[in-house]
Amino acid sequence: MPTAEAPARMLIEPQWMAPVRAEAGPAGEACLVDHAVVVEDDRIVDVLPQEQARQRNPAAERIALPGHLLVPGFVNLHAHAAMALLRGVGDDLPLSAWLRDRIWPLESRLVDPQFVRDGSTLAFAEMLLGGTTCVNDMYFFPEASVEAALAVGIRSAHGIIVVDFPTVYASAPAEYLRKGLALRDRLREHPLVSFCLAPHAPYTVGDDALREIATISREIGLPIHIHVHETAEEVAEGIARHGRRPLARLDALGLVGPEMIAVHAVHMDDDDLRRLAAGAVTVAHCPHSNGKLACGIAPTARMHAMGIRVGIGTDGSASNNRLDLLGEARTAALLAKATSGRADAWPAARTLRAMTLDAAAALGLDGRIGSIEAGKQADLVAVDLRAAELSPVYDPVSQLIYACGREHVSDVWVAGKAVVRTRQLADVLVRDALSEVVGRTGVWQNRVGEILSGRV
Amino acid sequence: MPTAEAPARMLIEPQWMAPVRAEAGPAGEACLVDHAVVVEDDRIVDVLPQEQARQRNPAAERIALPGHLLVPGFVNLHAHAAMALLRGVGDDLPLSAWLRDRIWPLESRLVDPQFVRDGSTLAFAEMLLGGTTCVNDMYFFPEASVEAALAVGIRSAHGIIVVDFPTVYASAPAEYLRKGLALRDRLREHPLVSFCLAPHAPYTVGDDALREIATISREIGLPIHIHVHETAEEVAEGIARHGRRPLARLDALGLVGPEMIAVHAVHMDDDDLRRLAAGAVTVAHCPHSNGKLACGIAPTARMHAMGIRVGIGTDGSASNNRLDLLGEARTAALLAKATSGRADAWPAARTLRAMTLDAAAALGLDGRIGSIEAGKQADLVAVDLRAAELSPVYDPVSQLIYACGREHVSDVWVAGKAVVRTRQLADVLVRDALSEVVGRTGVWQNRVGEILSGRV
Repeated sequence: MPTAEAPARMLIEPQWMAPVRAEAGPAGEACLVDHAVVVEDDRIVDVLPQEQARQRNPAAERIALPGHLLVPGFVNLHAHAAMALLRGVGDDLPLSAWLRDRIWPLESRLVDPQFVRDGSTLAFAEMLLGGTTCVNDMYFFPEASVEAALAVGIRSAHGIIVVDFPTVYASAPAEYLRKGLALRDRLREHPLVSFCLAPHAPYTVGDDALREIATISREIGLPIHIHVHETAEEVAEGIARHGRRPLARLDALGLVGPEMIAVHAVHMDDDDLRRLAAGAVTVAHCPHSNGKLACGIAPTARMHAMGIRVGIGTDGSASNNRLDLLGEARTAALLAKATSGRADAWPAARTLRAMTLDAAAALGLDGRIGSIEAGKQADLVAVDLRAAELSPVYDPVSQLIYACGREHVSDVWVAGKAVVRTRQLADVLVRDALSEVVGRTGVWQNRVGEILSGRV
Repeated sequence: MPTAEAPARMLIEPQWMAPVRAEAGPAGEACLVDHAVVVEDDRIVDVLPQEQARQRNPAAERIALPGHLLVPGFVNLHAHAAMALLRGVGDDLPLSAWLRDRIWPLESRLVDPQFVRDGSTLAFAEMLLGGTTCVNDMYFFPEASVEAALAVGIRSAHGIIVVDFPTVYASAPAEYLRKGLALRDRLREHPLVSFCLAPHAPYTVGDDALREIATISREIGLPIHIHVHETAEEVAEGIARHGRRPLARLDALGLVGPEMIAVHAVHMDDDDLRRLAAGAVTVAHCPHSNGKLACGIAPTARMHAMGIRVGIGTDGSASNNRLDLLGEARTAALLAKATSGRADAWPAARTLRAMTLDAAAALGLDGRIGSIEAGKQADLVAVDLRAAELSPVYDPVSQLIYACGREHVSDVWVAGKAVVRTRQLADVLVRDALSEVVGRTGVWQNRVGEILSGRV
């Protein structure tokens, strides 16, 4: 019998479990049936058949999940959370007009820590309710994003953002770096927060800053989160300005390597793809954003065939109005098939791995999250497969990727803490805080209207 | 004051309404704010500002929908509803193996009226809860599909299916036609049921039957629902066998015209597209199915640019495991942009029209459904935009297409009858019948397992 001092244990008992273990390989593995995850504090301490788990842990709290599939928490590999407040302000506009007439004028007038906190709170709550337990964010005032993430209860990586030009947040690369690195130093030991260097894109950051970022990355081991080859224009302009393709320039500057998270990677020639493969770069694939802004479709079936690791990101709400990683993953799988002509491209288990373990590895977090294994953090998502529209269940993982929606996500844990129970944010204080932010969105909407109409 | 004999009226009072009127044109129109739909029995009798509607109808029942957007019911232009029982049996397999090793062997052993009734019940309930109020179905034993549709409460069009070869349903084209036309004669006056001629595809129906179908269509004015150019192989084999592309052959046989609903239309050359435009054909675009089976991506931005009408279909659950027309529409809009390089291709209002009025017109039903206008049937969908992930609302229609999911569909009416209230099937008898079918899915799953394992 456990003594009074023994840490409290919890048994999560789903009907099916997809652990996404690294050693199962890309093809995945059969679901575990009637197994339990034994959780102690923030960690998974065991994965066992339910009977055995109960015998070994007779005092543990038991969470029965009949008809549910348990999977590792989803990792959203690219987001600009704060932009939730700009969701829908520039829909159906070409990228240039979208940026020039809407996003940039609004950002230059609106962005401050309060904007970032409110927008990020909306976005992180949306993500959590849809099963995303970890998000790789990039935005100005990351200290405000961190605050929102911790308040909502999501695990997060934050970009130490760098652009060459001044913004309300900082004036030049050195200041961007100083501010971001200082934040990182303050939060180094935080169990739920990590950081990436985030030079925005090859066309917004010059050689000097990029070189310095490569050096810092090597010295302190941070991933480099950067937009790459999102549009054909970006590649053409890069060639015109620098005499080579942007990815080749990044390579020459020392940024192409296992630390790199190349966001979008839509316009890729053979040389680009070989460079990603040789450098062990991870791609953050954002199919909905690439569609909405008419950028194109990334060659993700080829990437997988070449052994390139691909994670999935939602991008920000202004270019993908739905922060739904499960929906994004379904689209990723369907597009890989449609564009390659191979129905076996991006099969369900491989897609689940892209949105969990592969993305975690890109963030340098695969030792802590991304799979359901003893020793890892208990970041878990339960999906209720008992709905009429999911009956019968021939293959739970296939059902998850191709038939489920975020509406079937029932329970979510981050570091062992229940953050979503029966499709609702578990913590009443978080719910209240979210309601307060929703109440304030009207004020933000009015300010947007005033700016766009030229009244202020 | 209304007399006791006056028919009961209902005022549906959403915050926003997108009526999708034909005369607004493809660009759509601004949403009506604080307007009411006045419903009497099965029909819309008026659309008025709420205050005015209340003054004129003081005794009417009022349904307040603050923060909701009201739109015409969605029209699913291509489905094989019964296949819900086969959802997930052949995922990630190439089309040929999917058909040869899974779908055909299973269908030949399983399909009977009970299979069709159970599968269709699952599918129609899923569609209704997601806002689809009318579905164009194609399957064997359509009398069983009709039964399921009427029991669930969805409006439906049913294919008078024809293939050249014998199945459990019929032995030869003449018998297929006789059975289907007899069903249509029995149900001619039914307010919720209509019919299409449904020669399965150019490669499964010979010239004689196709010619006869063209004649019947002209004589009795039925649409022709047919798969066309789904795969590159189909086009190549059609050329090898008939000396011309399948669509050109259909044209020569008299099938290409305003009655035609060309399903898929993925592999289209310039001549094919001109033929569709000249014939005023409607395309039933099924992007998720075309992705899942690796068929490709239909050139829908070009179709719109050429004035070709395009509706949206889910296809059956075995090739698109989610019967969610709103999700399908979002993908349609994003793919049109991604493949055309134009972010203004398939804008939100145009996409809403594709999934309502344009699809209704293809079925010959645009005089009765597809828009919110006096005189039309009250087929309506309310979407709750008050969720945190939908705040703030800059443009309700854009929010619907790009940010909402079927989880935000709150209320659905078919012919003035509330079939979904607060995200639940409104009729307890329908809920009970659905639960019974869900209970039986285990039996169907066992039979599938036995057939695939060769045990029976």
